[in-house]
Amino acid sequence: MIKIYGKNCIYEAIMSKAPLKKVFILDTLPKKDKNIIDILEKRGYSYQLLSKDKMDKEFSQSNQGYAAYREDYKIYGDEFIDMIPENGGRVLLLDGIQDPHNLGAILRSVDAFSYDFVILPKNRSVFITEVVAHVSTGAIEYVKIAYVNSLLTAVNRLHEKNYWVLGTDAKGKIKTEDIDKSLNLAVIIGSEGFGMSKTLVNQSDFLITIPMTGHVNSLNASVSAGIVLKDLKKEIE
Amino acid sequence: MIKIYGKNCIYEAIMSKAPLKKVFILDTLPKKDKNIIDILEKRGYSYQLLSKDKMDKEFSQSNQGYAAYREDYKIYGDEFIDMIPENGGRVLLLDGIQDPHNLGAILRSVDAFSYDFVILPKNRSVFITEVVAHVSTGAIEYVKIAYVNSLLTAVNRLHEKNYWVLGTDAKGKIKTEDIDKSLNLAVIIGSEGFGMSKTLVNQSDFLITIPMTGHVNSLNASVSAGIVLKDLKKEIE
Repeated sequence: MIKIYGKNCIYEAIMSKAPLKKVFILDTLPKKDKNIIDILEKRGYSYQLLSKDKMDKEFSQSNQGYAAYREDYKIYGDEFIDMIPENGGRVLLLDGIQDPHNLGAILRSVDAFSYDFVILPKNRSVFITEVVAHVSTGAIEYVKIAYVNSLLTAVNRLHEKNYWVLGTDAKGKIKTEDIDKSLNLAVIIGSEGFGMSKTLVNQSDFLITIPMTGHVNSLNASVSAGIVLKDLKKEIE
Repeated sequence: MIKIYGKNCIYEAIMSKAPLKKVFILDTLPKKDKNIIDILEKRGYSYQLLSKDKMDKEFSQSNQGYAAYREDYKIYGDEFIDMIPENGGRVLLLDGIQDPHNLGAILRSVDAFSYDFVILPKNRSVFITEVVAHVSTGAIEYVKIAYVNSLLTAVNRLHEKNYWVLGTDAKGKIKTEDIDKSLNLAVIIGSEGFGMSKTLVNQSDFLITIPMTGHVNSLNASVSAGIVLKDLKKEIE
């Protein structure tokens, strides 16, 4: 079970028919927000009104008056490979993301640009925590996530399935606009401090780069991911 | 005075000749990182070696073994208007950003894409804190920032200086690729929870949007900013 909280998070969970065991609503919610009660009753969710003290004690103080107990999110493993599209697919691989705020923000972008799967290595990544769910503002309800033993194995399998693997690296020479968007694409984003591992750089079909002209010449990992995911999103006319 | 910390933050401060009153280095830093001492001596910065306990007590535990006392960052006000380019200028207005992590990440993008100024309203924004500086990984040393009494006044002045004011809004109809990049552009990004204020929406010459196809249909504020800043960056061939 996981505790989730925040207005957007709870609304998206309800709208996506997520398995919520119990929903908690602040008893002093302003009138305009009270229609949440009707929605909960119509959809048959069990709920309880709680005082601010009790809400803040049981959930993060960022609860905004909305919280719930939720069944754990469905997490996939190596079987992701059988669930991705044959044509025009989009997969994001995160090579060692540690910061729950970055992962939450990335999940919003993954949903916004309709990527098919997010793949993380089990032993060097932040897991799906309450903070990740909160920062995703509910996007997590719509995104398919796999934790795998080896990203390298995942990359090899993606190659077998005719995915082009695009690393992102400051030394990359290819711009996103030079990539054929009709292909199956698997994008790798490196970790906050260290970028992509060398093994994955070597296994990438292309290294793409975001052209920058400033001094520091690196972006926040969730910002890099957002830019690349948007630039390489599926072509839907 | 502000305390700054983190390897990138301290390196960028030194490289940009920032007014550091005193630098503090962890006494057990690995050998390969010890050349920081030579750099400090060559550049004439006063420094002191500190134990991990003392570093962690005086600075955030995210100090990574590098910290400093720095003079306050130079913050501008309404005079920003006389400091922006006549041609091909780029200004970012942040309409009520509250989260220091978002502001720090945005400053990295502002530096990376060479925007000329960041403008924030004094009374509805996070200020330049230690966390903002840290999350900017030193980009803050290169970025010009103004806090103004009224964003609306700033927008009016930008109009007088022949800047086109571009709001960002889910209801926008214009894509970034439709904007003439040779113009002077002032981009407004809304706050995390509420987007742009109606007054500023009304004062915008165009409302641009980032096309999204997912469920939640909004991005993290620093991700939105990064995408728009990159897409509208100056044309430098």
